[in-house]
Amino acid sequence: MTLSVRPYAADDAAALWAMLKPVFRAGDTYAVNRDISKEDALEFWLGSGHAVFVAEDRDVLGTYFVCPNKAGGGGHVANAAYVTAAGFGGKGVARAMLVHSLDTARAMGFRAMQYNFVVSTNTRAVDTWLRAGFEVVGRVPGAFNHPDHGYVDAFVMHKPLVSDGD
Amino acid sequence: MTLSVRPYAADDAAALWAMLKPVFRAGDTYAVNRDISKEDALEFWLGSGHAVFVAEDRDVLGTYFVCPNKAGGGGHVANAAYVTAAGFGGKGVARAMLVHSLDTARAMGFRAMQYNFVVSTNTRAVDTWLRAGFEVVGRVPGAFNHPDHGYVDAFVMHKPLVSDGD
Repeated sequence: MTLSVRPYAADDAAALWAMLKPVFRAGDTYAVNRDISKEDALEFWLGSGHAVFVAEDRDVLGTYFVCPNKAGGGGHVANAAYVTAAGFGGKGVARAMLVHSLDTARAMGFRAMQYNFVVSTNTRAVDTWLRAGFEVVGRVPGAFNHPDHGYVDAFVMHKPLVSDGD
Repeated sequence: MTLSVRPYAADDAAALWAMLKPVFRAGDTYAVNRDISKEDALEFWLGSGHAVFVAEDRDVLGTYFVCPNKAGGGGHVANAAYVTAAGFGGKGVARAMLVHSLDTARAMGFRAMQYNFVVSTNTRAVDTWLRAGFEVVGRVPGAFNHPDHGYVDAFVMHKPLVSDGD
């Protein structure tokens, strides 16, 4: 598998929805309404201010976006979200998107990357972020109602993108 | 001063903007663009799904809203934001709105209240929340670019609204 990561194009809408749909329908990783419509899901992912990318081999196998985490005095911190196509977990797609997203955020001038709501039972994601140098800077008790596990904690995770002197 | 707290009405728009404007222009407590327009500020405060209230004596002296902090599996946790009219700090307006907002959130069926981004230098607010039983469950380094102090931390604060058995 030779992955490349490129900006999202309007032609990718069907492939994007095909990736988002099972993740949102499962309701175990994203705090998104499980019955969200295609239109609302695409609007959520392609929101104003989002830089959206897809990872592809022959097919589109993943997508991510980077955006400002907050406006105003919070505008120097990026937020991002990632989805890997069903059946392609554990093949390095998320890792490739992570590396690309950190470079993208740095190039956009962000000083840090913050994930606001990492569901604690999503251990594959948590482990990926920890290995990439993210720290858990917050743990919100019972923040997520998991379809199988009930109320589980959510992590706030953070990684600086510049050194202190910058 | 005899404060009452009542739902926001369309007639309150001018008073609402008069309260929000100096807070957003100051840029030291809210992660909102300092030059936000009146229209965008009202849209932000009166957003879809927000239950908005005002506190008044003879004049409107404060406003707050309660909304779901997240969709989907995060929909059982409330978020809220508060603004006290300029010159009326330290007179119990924030405290009255806090008490009212916790009751409102409980009545709306939320299981907890979470503040995602409490600027650490906003010590009056932090102290008010701590006294009301909130805990700091996260501390994001350098999350807020304060106009006077530069990069300062932001807190994630949390308070359960139901006991564990509920």
